[in-house]
Amino acid sequence: MKIEILNTGTELMLGKVVNTHGAWFGRELFKLGLRAQRQTCVPDGEAIREAIAESLTRCDVLLITGGLGPTTDDITREITAELLGLPLLLDESVVRHIEGIFAHHGRKPPPGNERQAMVPEGANVLDNPNGTAPGLHVPARPDGSSPHLFLLPGPPRELHPMFHDQVVPRLRSLLGDTALPTFLNFRIINVGESAIAEKIEQPLDALVGLGGLEVGYCARPGEVDVRLIGPSGLVATGAEIVRRAFPTEIATESEAELQEVVLDLLTARGETLSTAESCTGGLIASTLTDVPGASRAFLRGYVTYANEAKTDLLGVPPEMLAAHGAVSEPVARAMVEGCRHAAGTTHALSVTGIAGPDGGSEEKPVGTVFIGLASEGRETRVVRLRHPGDRPTVKMRTLRSALDLLRRRLQGLE
Amino acid sequence: MKIEILNTGTELMLGKVVNTHGAWFGRELFKLGLRAQRQTCVPDGEAIREAIAESLTRCDVLLITGGLGPTTDDITREITAELLGLPLLLDESVVRHIEGIFAHHGRKPPPGNERQAMVPEGANVLDNPNGTAPGLHVPARPDGSSPHLFLLPGPPRELHPMFHDQVVPRLRSLLGDTALPTFLNFRIINVGESAIAEKIEQPLDALVGLGGLEVGYCARPGEVDVRLIGPSGLVATGAEIVRRAFPTEIATESEAELQEVVLDLLTARGETLSTAESCTGGLIASTLTDVPGASRAFLRGYVTYANEAKTDLLGVPPEMLAAHGAVSEPVARAMVEGCRHAAGTTHALSVTGIAGPDGGSEEKPVGTVFIGLASEGRETRVVRLRHPGDRPTVKMRTLRSALDLLRRRLQGLE
Repeated sequence: MKIEILNTGTELMLGKVVNTHGAWFGRELFKLGLRAQRQTCVPDGEAIREAIAESLTRCDVLLITGGLGPTTDDITREITAELLGLPLLLDESVVRHIEGIFAHHGRKPPPGNERQAMVPEGANVLDNPNGTAPGLHVPARPDGSSPHLFLLPGPPRELHPMFHDQVVPRLRSLLGDTALPTFLNFRIINVGESAIAEKIEQPLDALVGLGGLEVGYCARPGEVDVRLIGPSGLVATGAEIVRRAFPTEIATESEAELQEVVLDLLTARGETLSTAESCTGGLIASTLTDVPGASRAFLRGYVTYANEAKTDLLGVPPEMLAAHGAVSEPVARAMVEGCRHAAGTTHALSVTGIAGPDGGSEEKPVGTVFIGLASEGRETRVVRLRHPGDRPTVKMRTLRSALDLLRRRLQGLE
Repeated sequence: MKIEILNTGTELMLGKVVNTHGAWFGRELFKLGLRAQRQTCVPDGEAIREAIAESLTRCDVLLITGGLGPTTDDITREITAELLGLPLLLDESVVRHIEGIFAHHGRKPPPGNERQAMVPEGANVLDNPNGTAPGLHVPARPDGSSPHLFLLPGPPRELHPMFHDQVVPRLRSLLGDTALPTFLNFRIINVGESAIAEKIEQPLDALVGLGGLEVGYCARPGEVDVRLIGPSGLVATGAEIVRRAFPTEIATESEAELQEVVLDLLTARGETLSTAESCTGGLIASTLTDVPGASRAFLRGYVTYANEAKTDLLGVPPEMLAAHGAVSEPVARAMVEGCRHAAGTTHALSVTGIAGPDGGSEEKPVGTVFIGLASEGRETRVVRLRHPGDRPTVKMRTLRSALDLLRRRLQGLE
């Protein structure tokens, strides 16, 4: 089923509002085993006509948001009726719905509101419990010369419930008996996109050649998603290839964030965590506490940016700082042990490094980081890494490396 | 000048990543007095061909992001060359750039990377200091049968500098003698978009009516940008209206981030800062340390998530926590005074609140936060705020409120 999304709204084009519709539709359609072939965004006004006209010839389902309101730049309804040659008829039930909403606030609908009650002949009205403008479903012509059109409101709080309650059931009935494809996502930490491709692209390509399997990569700093989509048998075979290539590097086979994986592991074991951060400056603590319920496992964090803070709070000896420098193996070790001791947690993570752009040297160039991991009854581990990228990227990669070090320990994959 | 934007990437279509390119390009083009007529998003693969082919006939400038990487689903370069009938030639300078990046990490480029060095005949290479894939500028055909194509990398940290440094100058020269409009940006903290519009929309509309002035708003959690663009005289008159309406709320008349403004003020005075965070979980410290050179003013942060941490590290009495709860005026006050005392800094900020989704009550609903500010020789201040939104939004608004409290103190605007 070919699906397209058309978002209308000048505010989206001017950068006033980030268009989250594309990502939201993507996730919702995926749950139905569907994907959009295209998402287009145009300003209010006549640009909408050109965009709808093109899509009519190209897809089976067109989901349109915006342009259903009462003002004169809201013309999606009129343009659709015109393009399909359908007369607009006043729908009395919609008139009463709009009057009811205004009556609720002790007012009468201002002139212009009856435009929202005009319905193209043959279209189904989609009730809008959260606003005045109803949605519309214009069924495909029986001869296949036009797709199913869904005209939907722009504001998410009106769009989302209308989609779930009234569009999804219609899409399901259009799908009929078609088998849904299988989707699998591997989140791989700390391996570059090209290094990943080098290991798995060739064997996966052989499967792609059998037809129906799709492979996608999505890279973020320190983290790459490998996605397999297709018939379940091919996806299962592909999954084995990915698992064998990265026996310890796959943080999860879901779309859970690394911090959620780590916090779930800790919570399941009734264990606790504290952090001592220098170059990441609190990013690890902040990322952990983005997860609701983080307080069950994460107890405290130290952001020891100045050397005095490392000494005061974590007991790092000043002579050690003087002898080795703050960015060094012994200091990362002293930080993490001091942190775990002071916080009384099962585990502690420490980070000290050079995030840049300044502060690098021949021996310790920008991007050099030392990550410490201390756990009750285990030997403390310190790893030295070198992360490429600018300051925020080095911070982000260091965050993921640190959390992954703990994940491996918790999963027995060291 | 008709401009279109094409974003490629299956991850954008699947909803894994919100497409922020559209909004970002919208804002950047606005500064040049330009706007995009259309933004299209398609998955990786053959859908790119159809989308580019259509745009070729429709616009003067086509900005394409994504699909320049080393993997087999990165085919934007090849499709563009094919559609325009241009042979792809190996560019030795790009080969050396890629080899240099890998050599920097003591590695050799894996096979496949040379695809990134293939350049359509006649195209200009746009250097990519932040990644392996260079951008490309394929000039318009002299007969006007194809637009200027800019092939740009998808990751924002590669895209943004390349756009500013290499695409903007080319767009300017395409614009020719058209007088460049004046652009002014006001960053206003902690005032809602509609409250801002209510104060300045009417007087600014009068100027818009004179012709040539455009007003744009861009809202993020806790922060709204008001942008004026047009002839310098009208912009100057409009700027006076904005300044008079918000005498203390404008953090900056540039696009500097609030944390940069605060750190610049501190550094100029030779003053220092420490933080004690509960519900923001280290976000304030992490945001401050995103700024290069933050260590000159920011010395340490405490992430006191558990109550014991508030007592141990900041000296908040357990009986105070029991009597008032961790989210309370006295606790915010004790946290900030304990923090400044322990850290020995000129200023300290504390935050305690309920970020949600759980933990709210009738008296202290989700979004309730107390922010404390202590400064040497000044009375400690605690403000209570109620921030709408989900957990990340509450954290972000709280971050901005806290930094803005300090900004006002430093600028004598309390």
